[in-house]
Amino acid sequence: MPTFPAAPIPGQDRTAQWVRADRDRLIHPNLPSGRTDRTVIVEGRGCHVRDSRGRRYLDAAAVLGMMQVGHGREEIVSAATAQLGTLECFHLWESMSNDKAIELAVRLTDLAPAGLDRAFFTSGGAEGNEIALRMARFFHYRRQQPERTWILSRRTAYHGIAYGAGSVSGLPVYHEGFGPQLPHVHHLTAPDPYQNSAYDGEDVTEFCLRELRETIERIGPDRIAAMIGEPVMSVGGAVVPPPDYWPRVAELLRSHGILLIFDEVVTAYGRTGHWFAAEHFGVRPDLLVTAKGITSGYVPHGAVLVTEEVAAAVTGSTGFPIGFTYTGHPTACAVALANLDIIEREKLLDNATTTGGHLADRLATLTDLPVVGDVRQIGLMLGIELVADKESRAQLPTGTAPVAQALREDAGIILRGNPRSLLINPPLVMDRATADELADGLHTVLARVEPDGRVRP
Amino acid sequence: MPTFPAAPIPGQDRTAQWVRADRDRLIHPNLPSGRTDRTVIVEGRGCHVRDSRGRRYLDAAAVLGMMQVGHGREEIVSAATAQLGTLECFHLWESMSNDKAIELAVRLTDLAPAGLDRAFFTSGGAEGNEIALRMARFFHYRRQQPERTWILSRRTAYHGIAYGAGSVSGLPVYHEGFGPQLPHVHHLTAPDPYQNSAYDGEDVTEFCLRELRETIERIGPDRIAAMIGEPVMSVGGAVVPPPDYWPRVAELLRSHGILLIFDEVVTAYGRTGHWFAAEHFGVRPDLLVTAKGITSGYVPHGAVLVTEEVAAAVTGSTGFPIGFTYTGHPTACAVALANLDIIEREKLLDNATTTGGHLADRLATLTDLPVVGDVRQIGLMLGIELVADKESRAQLPTGTAPVAQALREDAGIILRGNPRSLLINPPLVMDRATADELADGLHTVLARVEPDGRVRP
Repeated sequence: MPTFPAAPIPGQDRTAQWVRADRDRLIHPNLPSGRTDRTVIVEGRGCHVRDSRGRRYLDAAAVLGMMQVGHGREEIVSAATAQLGTLECFHLWESMSNDKAIELAVRLTDLAPAGLDRAFFTSGGAEGNEIALRMARFFHYRRQQPERTWILSRRTAYHGIAYGAGSVSGLPVYHEGFGPQLPHVHHLTAPDPYQNSAYDGEDVTEFCLRELRETIERIGPDRIAAMIGEPVMSVGGAVVPPPDYWPRVAELLRSHGILLIFDEVVTAYGRTGHWFAAEHFGVRPDLLVTAKGITSGYVPHGAVLVTEEVAAAVTGSTGFPIGFTYTGHPTACAVALANLDIIEREKLLDNATTTGGHLADRLATLTDLPVVGDVRQIGLMLGIELVADKESRAQLPTGTAPVAQALREDAGIILRGNPRSLLINPPLVMDRATADELADGLHTVLARVEPDGRVRP
Repeated sequence: MPTFPAAPIPGQDRTAQWVRADRDRLIHPNLPSGRTDRTVIVEGRGCHVRDSRGRRYLDAAAVLGMMQVGHGREEIVSAATAQLGTLECFHLWESMSNDKAIELAVRLTDLAPAGLDRAFFTSGGAEGNEIALRMARFFHYRRQQPERTWILSRRTAYHGIAYGAGSVSGLPVYHEGFGPQLPHVHHLTAPDPYQNSAYDGEDVTEFCLRELRETIERIGPDRIAAMIGEPVMSVGGAVVPPPDYWPRVAELLRSHGILLIFDEVVTAYGRTGHWFAAEHFGVRPDLLVTAKGITSGYVPHGAVLVTEEVAAAVTGSTGFPIGFTYTGHPTACAVALANLDIIEREKLLDNATTTGGHLADRLATLTDLPVVGDVRQIGLMLGIELVADKESRAQLPTGTAPVAQALREDAGIILRGNPRSLLINPPLVMDRATADELADGLHTVLARVEPDGRVRP
């Protein structure tokens, strides 16, 4: 693994200038206007990044759950450079095509669960979910069932924040203040084995299936286009559903002609120890949305993989009438191919399973702490749920933000959290020593967290 | 300008294999399933691209109206390679930042019309319009006017195809079959000096302003968040509004506290001979959406530029709660900086004006042909409207697709069209000789077009 060069030469630290410009000119997501601190990241290598002051951090979030192969990979830089110098950019509208888009489509549909034989390219996860929602409705429209327009989703789901993707997302913060959302969307209860008070003692899967059956009956099966879900909820807290949940949901949907959309923006390309989490659950969705790990974030990109049946319906006669500017972008496709090469060659699926298992072992005793309610893991996707009280399982009154901040400042660990849980999605190249560095930091900092959310010095 | 290397070695032509794989594995936008031909582009240089059979084309669409600096620019490849090897990817969530995003934000807000002092980064035009729509509604919500949710747009507008952007788009093809659209959107008549039958002899601006006033009155000014529009409609046909349209619209909106969103995804970064088309019309919108030309398409990217007033409202107290995975992507930002350097150094704004003017001079006599109704130009953005009949100004019964195909096959010119008009958006590096190559090809092919849309051999 390459290492960092020396820290910046003293006297050439531009941090103050950058921070001032950042405050004056940029808008950040999720940053209250009163907050003046900034961490200016300037370099990355493997599982680590460095800021403008020369401080090194363990990037336990893989930026935003996407850098499967880690930072600073020469193979990807070479592939990007070669493609940028040949054909940097073209499109796939009408009958125009390019070699790299074709090669990536072949590669992805070969890797995908059997039956997902067609690829549609996007530049990211939100675009992918928008396309999936549109394809699902258009599929039924083209098959003479235009009244099938309803989309089923789940509360606490995150599918991105374009208006379609944001409407099916189930977190109120993406709806409140943003006006009326896309109509014909219904949110179901998501399976959450830890936060299980909603199920009234009933088996989680039984509860969710009953609710799904009743909802289909109430809306009417012939008015429902699709159900969308993350096989493992990511932003929702790395919540792994019971093993029988997705197979039974898929079966019920199929019996009613309702399409199943898997949002695998986070889970695809090795995150869970499989190419796609669909394999883990033994389920083949009709549409499978991917992004992030497809290029490890080196260049924005995404792909929606669909069945031949869906492709035939949406492209038939006059064609599928929509697409994006960067659909099939050759440089993004070349980067994706190089990235998949590394995932295969370095057996990163296996590493996600073994290093993820090791990390779970090291973190299991965290639940001895009064503020740690649950530790969840699948591959290199982990969630640590923090609670004010183990009886009520209520979240910390401060949320997890002060804990994430202490991890960064005191332990040099970068990760993100939702109000309930810390989320750990490191690069899949993480080795055992780096996993231990992460586990040590988490043990040290979490031992200092009080039930009111404060972090003791 | 660099030239192509020799054509592929005979016997190494992989076209047949690529075309077969393309048909089996890819979904193209706008391609009827029965159509089997493919043009596989493999290389680009300046204003030209080459396909897998070795054929050279003039790329008069700049891919999709975005390659301001043309294909194969070494300066951009170098900037991308350097950044990919340093910090390929990071994000701007919460207080995390990176040097390249900050530098680009400074550069863009310095270039932008006075008052647009804050940048929010995206990966493309649809994402940018989604953010603008959300910011407009959120602006009023945060300022205690949550009932301001309506968005005014125009028929024949194109703003991208995510559900929010697609809902404000005014072309029926993006709505039909895709279920209910985002509520609280109203489409107005767009100003179109050529297709002017809708105005009943009234002055175009007067008609549009009256309709706007009546619409504001009917919906209620305190229920309207914003109006969105392309300063010059691109997909709609390179339609340049009368000079007094935007200033009067902006004044009326401002008097009612309604925000103005300019969708400059196509028009920004020199396309019209200005950094932003807003300057051409002497109007300062509250939000200005850009993408495409910001990186000349080398890496997907976009930026929404907003006033300090909008930024303060949407970020205040708890922050603006949404963003994208690739918001502030360092490689995209580094590529944008290198791209803006070229636009400045090579005076491409001036070239857009002079070469665009020369092209317009060369194409003016096209209207002597029976099928050419109108030739429109601003900078290097041109539209040629084809008609079956000059009296009724009705479109060709076939649309423009057969003409675009003949241009490609017979004259080696790639461009796109909407059903009424051929659209010309070449790279801004186009020189006079290449403009003449384009004009010659258009004259030759358009002289062969019959009023029924057929192209004579």
